[in-house]
Amino acid sequence: MQLMEQMIVEYGKIYPNNVLKVDSFLNHQVNINLLEDLAQEIYRLYKDFEITKILTIETSGIMLACFVAQAFRVPMLFAKRIRGVKIKNNVHSAQVFSCAHDKDYTIYVDKDYLGSDDKVLLIDDFLANGYSMKGLVQLAQSADATVVGAAVAIEKGFQGGGDILRSLGLRIESMAIIESMGEDGIVFRQ
Amino acid sequence: MQLMEQMIVEYGKIYPNNVLKVDSFLNHQVNINLLEDLAQEIYRLYKDFEITKILTIETSGIMLACFVAQAFRVPMLFAKRIRGVKIKNNVHSAQVFSCAHDKDYTIYVDKDYLGSDDKVLLIDDFLANGYSMKGLVQLAQSADATVVGAAVAIEKGFQGGGDILRSLGLRIESMAIIESMGEDGIVFRQ
Repeated sequence: MQLMEQMIVEYGKIYPNNVLKVDSFLNHQVNINLLEDLAQEIYRLYKDFEITKILTIETSGIMLACFVAQAFRVPMLFAKRIRGVKIKNNVHSAQVFSCAHDKDYTIYVDKDYLGSDDKVLLIDDFLANGYSMKGLVQLAQSADATVVGAAVAIEKGFQGGGDILRSLGLRIESMAIIESMGEDGIVFRQ
Repeated sequence: MQLMEQMIVEYGKIYPNNVLKVDSFLNHQVNINLLEDLAQEIYRLYKDFEITKILTIETSGIMLACFVAQAFRVPMLFAKRIRGVKIKNNVHSAQVFSCAHDKDYTIYVDKDYLGSDDKVLLIDDFLANGYSMKGLVQLAQSADATVVGAAVAIEKGFQGGGDILRSLGLRIESMAIIESMGEDGIVFRQ
């Protein structure tokens, strides 16, 4: 999507270790016009699938998920992280590997809000190694919900998570896919 | 606001220790129609103040803040929590007391996104003891931004934080103020 690529080129900042900072418009300060446009494009791609629920993961997927839910006129649900050792009752849960901490953490949703009648669209801001997205798929599956597909604002194609998940049968629509990035700039997948 | 009170009465669940669970529509699963209506009411109350930015705190203030930002057509910015002992550069920060953990934690925003030109509206889902809201006020003040006021979905009036902050001069608009709650039901402030 041209708008997403333009925003990355114009306002994104590249740091060492493949870090792309987009927090001026996507995941700290949030540009409402951009999110509305992304949501409209995601709606166009998935509007024929009778989506019943938008599922994301806290924190930075929530903003895009709100506007996507608005476009579809369905509820938004976000998976929470379990912090500490609290045991939660009446939840669906899944494990997500954290590169930053080199260990798994647990995400969950209340069982009352996700079930076998649901057709779910998964949303996140970034897709890189795919661990968060894989956790969302497993969360939906543990609720016997149907995963229609996923959509993300920015996919770091060179980290491979998106292609692995696609090879497993998940439809993923990325508003921009970065093939490579570095001092010479950013190359997008066509 | 009648709609907010209706939703609390119809779908809220009361638990011991003054816990009100509204996660079927406000802060886990999110009812988009409700948030749009709350945002329109908040816009009506603050539309004449040339708001330049909506400021909230992660996680559960973000959803309402998104729709309020949409109504005002300005960016949304959310304060992040510092987890662990990482020192952040180029940030405004403030301390927030956590009742759950009986100690302070630090919230921050990037200095690039909040400054003396900003007229800020503070948003949160709940206002109870007022610690989070006080932290947001201090964050905005440390950026020399003008705090126009605050708006929350639900105020637990009996916990007193809202009235203390009002007595200090902060304008707070609460879509519903709970005066008391218990086995006999909920009494709202008129």
